[in-house]
Amino acid sequence: MSGAGEFELIAALAGHLDPAADGLGIGDDAAAWPVSPGSLVVATTDMLVEGVHFRLDWTSPRDLGWKALAVNLSDLAAMGATPGRALVSVALLPGQAALVEEMYEGLSELCRLTGTRVVGGDTVRTSGPLVVNVALVGEVEPGRLLRRDCAQPGDLLLLTGTVGASAAGLALLLEGDRERLARSEAASLLSAHHRPQPRLNAGRTIASLGLRCAIDVSDGVASEAWHLARASGVAIRLDTDLFPLADAAVSLLGEAKARQLAVSGGEDYQLLFTVPEARLAEVTAALGEEDRPSVVGQVVGLREGGYVELIQAGLVVESGRPGYVAF
Amino acid sequence: MSGAGEFELIAALAGHLDPAADGLGIGDDAAAWPVSPGSLVVATTDMLVEGVHFRLDWTSPRDLGWKALAVNLSDLAAMGATPGRALVSVALLPGQAALVEEMYEGLSELCRLTGTRVVGGDTVRTSGPLVVNVALVGEVEPGRLLRRDCAQPGDLLLLTGTVGASAAGLALLLEGDRERLARSEAASLLSAHHRPQPRLNAGRTIASLGLRCAIDVSDGVASEAWHLARASGVAIRLDTDLFPLADAAVSLLGEAKARQLAVSGGEDYQLLFTVPEARLAEVTAALGEEDRPSVVGQVVGLREGGYVELIQAGLVVESGRPGYVAF
Repeated sequence: MSGAGEFELIAALAGHLDPAADGLGIGDDAAAWPVSPGSLVVATTDMLVEGVHFRLDWTSPRDLGWKALAVNLSDLAAMGATPGRALVSVALLPGQAALVEEMYEGLSELCRLTGTRVVGGDTVRTSGPLVVNVALVGEVEPGRLLRRDCAQPGDLLLLTGTVGASAAGLALLLEGDRERLARSEAASLLSAHHRPQPRLNAGRTIASLGLRCAIDVSDGVASEAWHLARASGVAIRLDTDLFPLADAAVSLLGEAKARQLAVSGGEDYQLLFTVPEARLAEVTAALGEEDRPSVVGQVVGLREGGYVELIQAGLVVESGRPGYVAF
Repeated sequence: MSGAGEFELIAALAGHLDPAADGLGIGDDAAAWPVSPGSLVVATTDMLVEGVHFRLDWTSPRDLGWKALAVNLSDLAAMGATPGRALVSVALLPGQAALVEEMYEGLSELCRLTGTRVVGGDTVRTSGPLVVNVALVGEVEPGRLLRRDCAQPGDLLLLTGTVGASAAGLALLLEGDRERLARSEAASLLSAHHRPQPRLNAGRTIASLGLRCAIDVSDGVASEAWHLARASGVAIRLDTDLFPLADAAVSLLGEAKARQLAVSGGEDYQLLFTVPEARLAEVTAALGEEDRPSVVGQVVGLREGGYVELIQAGLVVESGRPGYVAF
């Protein structure tokens, strides 16, 4: 966006942001801030496109702003990192300034809850779908970095919270059945879809316990397990009967559908991490009620290139690369 | 982009990147790397949209990749900072994978020249124009940070290199006169437009001399001078007769047009910075041939809210807020 419109919108957006006390923020060529001595910088980015990642008739601008930041915070959670400064780029049509301001309100809400500051960004015109890109920079002590590539044979695979709620919310929206959408369980599923809660505390707790291997569940659990297996060079057995299903998804869609969505539906933003068997009780106790973990599988051996077996009712139902499996 | 296509494209793109020796790069939830002890983190982002910031019939994908990174590097140059790690997000149509790969080649070329590493990104589908967002993270020693808000009354305003070439290149493209486009001067103007050269060395030299106030010229010089004036609370007098015009622009478009483009055309990515009058010779000598600075104005006093006077042939031709002036 060029000319007066840009400056006015930027000024309006800046009003939603907390000023950075210890650095330069919006208003200079770039933002600058100090890092805790010895810490690593951690950075990630996600781009959301209207019609691909969200629909403006299903998602409020506030929820869109929340989610655009949340998906990045989830990546930081999976690294054991602390937010964070965000850079927010938006491509909008003429006439969408008010919508983008609302989007910023939702984003700012999650900023306040997580100690994140928006320190820069770019606001530009487009002739096409609304595009929101968030780049998020945080930090982590080198000894507390969580990675994908250090799962060990024998480790248990744990999952925080429950899975399947976000995909169930999306399924309800796709189905468009007003009666089901009006039921009380639907609200929690839609909220899981629109306002995911990044597991920042869980990530830091896992890191503080000396655990080293984690990934966030942005795709389905099976697909993320495959990423872990590949990066670590191990074989993983996942028991779908152990997956902690969201109650509302089971109640509204039935257990079979809820389980299918939990396995391959995605957007749960829980953490999948590995724990030596002997430490299960200690780790379970250390995580709060909302992050209470469930054992969902085990690393069964070394395997170059990675390997995952999906178990259902005691039988191997799929094996290989789960990302491509039509479960 | 979801499914196999995304993984294949990401793998292809990763092949163009230098592996980070001292951190985690593409392949984990986020990138992580160490920062020089005591340094500040510096971060900026820019989004380019097809049809708004570039046209694929005028810009090669390689040049697009170069420019998407260059505009961010210019912001870091204006902070006195060193690159850097980049996060590159792209929204593309089905069928544009080869184009995006070429774009990455141009981006990687500038990475190698500037010591920048692409450590992450996002590749997503769109139904609309191609969108490229680069977020760039660098670092700077706190004592060498260049800012917009510390221009002092009496300071001279200096500009590195020449201005007007990029806007002249764009003017040639808009005009579409094949004969003029074929002339030898056109090549340097088109190159200035498509492959801007961020003044990273100039920024670091300026910072190392103990100077503190700089901004990059992404909009016209007059507009950037106004940003400096506002942030610093000073009045600036800019003498357009002193602007260092690009020879090829003068030769191809005439001096009057070249000067107009230099004042308000933008995209020169030179640095505008302040120098105490007594240090002019020293500062001029310290900057290399390509960055050789010209005096283009002076800070004439304090002025809350900022003020800029444009001088031409000894007369004030405009004053106030140059961003809005149709010069």
